[in-house]
Amino acid sequence: MAEQKATNITWHDHRVSSADRQTLNGHKVAVLWFTGLSAAGKSTVANTVDHKLHARGIHTYILDGDNIRMGLNKNLGFNDADRTENIRRIGEVAKLFSDAGLIALTAFISPFKADRDQVRSLFKNGEFHEIYVNASLETCEKRDPKGLYKKARAGEMKNFTGIDSPYEAPENPELVLDANTRSIDELADDVIAYLASKGLLSA
Amino acid sequence: MAEQKATNITWHDHRVSSADRQTLNGHKVAVLWFTGLSAAGKSTVANTVDHKLHARGIHTYILDGDNIRMGLNKNLGFNDADRTENIRRIGEVAKLFSDAGLIALTAFISPFKADRDQVRSLFKNGEFHEIYVNASLETCEKRDPKGLYKKARAGEMKNFTGIDSPYEAPENPELVLDANTRSIDELADDVIAYLASKGLLSA
Repeated sequence: MAEQKATNITWHDHRVSSADRQTLNGHKVAVLWFTGLSAAGKSTVANTVDHKLHARGIHTYILDGDNIRMGLNKNLGFNDADRTENIRRIGEVAKLFSDAGLIALTAFISPFKADRDQVRSLFKNGEFHEIYVNASLETCEKRDPKGLYKKARAGEMKNFTGIDSPYEAPENPELVLDANTRSIDELADDVIAYLASKGLLSA
Repeated sequence: MAEQKATNITWHDHRVSSADRQTLNGHKVAVLWFTGLSAAGKSTVANTVDHKLHARGIHTYILDGDNIRMGLNKNLGFNDADRTENIRRIGEVAKLFSDAGLIALTAFISPFKADRDQVRSLFKNGEFHEIYVNASLETCEKRDPKGLYKKARAGEMKNFTGIDSPYEAPENPELVLDANTRSIDELADDVIAYLASKGLLSA
């Protein structure tokens, strides 16, 4: 858990409130937190859902593992402490986007339960949606689109989730996607159906 | 400069592009980067400008020194390295908001020229607007709304900008606000007039 270092600071309420920003956008806010193994399909499903939401006029933004690691989190590697800080920062940024009135989609392995729970604790009830993109290690290793599992098995990559670094599957996620048998489009439709059931699709 | 640690990552183009997000919002993107001494009026002016933009239907978000330091940057203090990392992260987050189609306003002392220039380098020409809230040390120390200058003069706070840590004034900012003599509302109107001159007010 990150310690609060700066003292002598006070919370400033902004003249434009979070509620004002939601009113301008015309829809509720949410964080759709996709978690799962590398190659499970997190980014692809999240992008497809993002596309469908955008087409409905919903204001969204996607935070993506690879992309965030080239910017905000470029100074973090893959040891346990850096993975925890990686997820902590992304959770805080997702909170800023939610505060700004957007639906934020995040696609990160986010292997540790404690880190995901810490992010969840930043949000009000009903705002954080943990979506487990459930594909078996066997499925992911067979796909291996970037050849990363092969490198990890050969010992050329260290701290690779599922090989020599653990993945702690969600125990009570809001939604589980069966990524072993269903297509990307079917999985995206599963998410859209879930969001509709939660009243999040009116824009 | 932060070193890129993660390898084996590739940039993912998102299905919804930055241009798509701008089209949905109906206006251009920008970063309004307010810089100046503590108590110069950065946060107050930025909040007033934010309010005026929001009233015009422009999608905005404000990143504020105190607030960011309670979340994303809670693990940073005020030594030089932490100040640089503070501004680096905020620049990257401002870039995400800009990519999401919003006008981002930031209100941070951001005392070092090199740090501000590094943030500028993240953006396309015309997107980054450095706004110098120019109030003299004498003016700021007289105001001292939180009693911070008093504490710094008494040696109870270290690394305080203007006292025992330098402020490097912008050499070529896009806009200079005369915060010694003009009121907050006048300064906010100066910013609005500047944005109008840049064609950024059509929503």
